[in-house]
Amino acid sequence: MSIDSTRLTVTPIGIIHSPFFQQEGAPIQPYSAKGVEGSVEVYAPYAEGLADLGGFERVWLVYWFDRACAAKLRVLPQWETREHGVFATRVPARINPIGLSPVRLLGVEGTTLHVAEIDILDGTPLLDIKPYVPEYDAYIGLRVGWLDDAAIARGPLKADGRFSKE
Amino acid sequence: MSIDSTRLTVTPIGIIHSPFFQQEGAPIQPYSAKGVEGSVEVYAPYAEGLADLGGFERVWLVYWFDRACAAKLRVLPQWETREHGVFATRVPARINPIGLSPVRLLGVEGTTLHVAEIDILDGTPLLDIKPYVPEYDAYIGLRVGWLDDAAIARGPLKADGRFSKE
Repeated sequence: MSIDSTRLTVTPIGIIHSPFFQQEGAPIQPYSAKGVEGSVEVYAPYAEGLADLGGFERVWLVYWFDRACAAKLRVLPQWETREHGVFATRVPARINPIGLSPVRLLGVEGTTLHVAEIDILDGTPLLDIKPYVPEYDAYIGLRVGWLDDAAIARGPLKADGRFSKE
Repeated sequence: MSIDSTRLTVTPIGIIHSPFFQQEGAPIQPYSAKGVEGSVEVYAPYAEGLADLGGFERVWLVYWFDRACAAKLRVLPQWETREHGVFATRVPARINPIGLSPVRLLGVEGTTLHVAEIDILDGTPLLDIKPYVPEYDAYIGLRVGWLDDAAIARGPLKADGRFSKE
């Protein structure tokens, strides 16, 4: 099979709030967002699913890049001089525009998560929350392909808006 | 707003192959799958998006839990005696059944990724591939809530199939 035309549907379980209203100027990845706080509002019908989440120090937010431009297969990441395949980058211009951020969890109050180190745009639809478990998720000292040659791109970064809708 | 009825659609960009044909007996998380090899077939129209992926040692596979049971808000993880909110666990019975596994990338050959440490069922629809970047993704020494008290659940595990469809 060379393509699959199955269409699967997801629905927002909440909405993310942050100080960033547009891609331009927003931090790239949580490690570029030290000191930045935001919140996540989980919709009431899903409240029970948050039980015991407060004990985790960090959570994965899985969300929809609702303001990303259309998917591209080759992209030019910021401060990079060569294009790379989109699946070799973390840019939002993806075939399925699913974002993934490991943010710090400051606390859970009812259906509100208070979070820090948030790199997500205000108003972004939330699809899932998963606890960050170092045994499952943390791998250090890995080869990182073209990023190994792009030292400048590995420090904290702010987006210039090149993958924004319109 | 207490709920959002927006329906967003995703479409498979490929299919995952592994030695696991059912949930029962499959490893839980890549760290339970040492030595297990599998592959990922990316559909031909997306081939160009794989350029330069081969330089990364590990990749995130984002996929659809196509054989998970219906979503539950409270779940009883294996070898645990108390229920927890689904968002405080990594079980597949999620509102949006999106899975996330950081697998080892052995190589890329055309549109095939050879991978190891794979905990995903054979035939699973692939939604996205992202490079694993330790600066973005690796956090160690974190509090992990109820898992801190469930030491047995933190060693390598095989699934007993309790979150399987039917």
